[in-house]
Amino acid sequence: MKQILEFWYEFASTYSYLSAMRIEELAEENQIIIAWKPFLLGPIFKEQGWGDSPFNIYPAKGRYMWKDMARQTQKRRIPFKKPTVFPRNGLLAARIALWGSEENWCSAFTKKVFQSNFAENQEIGDVESLTSILKSLKLNAEDIISQAHSQENKNLLKRQTEKAQKLGIFGAPSFIVKNELFWGDDRLEEAIAFLKG
Amino acid sequence: MKQILEFWYEFASTYSYLSAMRIEELAEENQIIIAWKPFLLGPIFKEQGWGDSPFNIYPAKGRYMWKDMARQTQKRRIPFKKPTVFPRNGLLAARIALWGSEENWCSAFTKKVFQSNFAENQEIGDVESLTSILKSLKLNAEDIISQAHSQENKNLLKRQTEKAQKLGIFGAPSFIVKNELFWGDDRLEEAIAFLKG
Repeated sequence: MKQILEFWYEFASTYSYLSAMRIEELAEENQIIIAWKPFLLGPIFKEQGWGDSPFNIYPAKGRYMWKDMARQTQKRRIPFKKPTVFPRNGLLAARIALWGSEENWCSAFTKKVFQSNFAENQEIGDVESLTSILKSLKLNAEDIISQAHSQENKNLLKRQTEKAQKLGIFGAPSFIVKNELFWGDDRLEEAIAFLKG
Repeated sequence: MKQILEFWYEFASTYSYLSAMRIEELAEENQIIIAWKPFLLGPIFKEQGWGDSPFNIYPAKGRYMWKDMARQTQKRRIPFKKPTVFPRNGLLAARIALWGSEENWCSAFTKKVFQSNFAENQEIGDVESLTSILKSLKLNAEDIISQAHSQENKNLLKRQTEKAQKLGIFGAPSFIVKNELFWGDDRLEEAIAFLKG
């Protein structure tokens, strides 16, 4: 049986983008399975007293993050454009990704949303943008969005975010392997090594 | 002429300890010079509205940090004991390190203080502890501490911390190479590559 790497991500999170763009290749190399775990950072940040991204609340930290993102994406040859809106609202995208989290299109959808946000500076929060992304993947956008909007699925995302908190998650990306938390794109390789060792 | 890597560190900072224990070997391998830049995070955190370490203010972040420190030190075979007091007051140690920052004992002193704090769970804030560390290095402790306590040196540390802020430093360790900021022990190799390339 293959081992499972839980990838906890938020669509507004810059460093989640870095992980989303490389996690599949790493998983394949290492013969492990990714469990896609979209969640919302907003409620978690709110508990810490933050009504906005810490990168906006703490300007020096924010300025550095954008520089670091430019450097990391260049190093990895991942397209990057600093978004004119940050953080973008990832609520509906997260609901869709959660609804599809065990479908084979979840990874492609996840990457497309991140690319829209951080490589193309496009909106990702409204029905129109997400319809267009789903259609580009040849999916039934209307049906998926309607399911994503269902009360059942809304509750699921709420519980998913509560679970993140219970797991000790305080930022994104986070990785859970064998009940151990690894935080940040910089710890992805270490999480995989821990899972395998 | 050798190139210079500025190593900005704070004695209360866990991740600064990780960098302090490996930066000399890396500098030697890469034929670069380290400029030792002790400074204080307290005034910088205060400007961000924090009266304590963010690892204490945000418990989930703090719990993760201690786990991560245990893992990183184990991986690198660096001794580590979770200190019973955190953060310890690094003011006098920073004054001493700044006073000696161009002396050949600065690196040994810096490492000893970090080891006292994070490997031996010893106090590092009082004259007695620092006298003992300086004496173990065969230095004239009384003379150095008296110089460290001078108004001139106190002002120097104040200005050093103000300079850190002007450079955009918001945490430790930070590295400045060719006027570029790199933050965190995880970026040490990248700072060196940037300096050399």
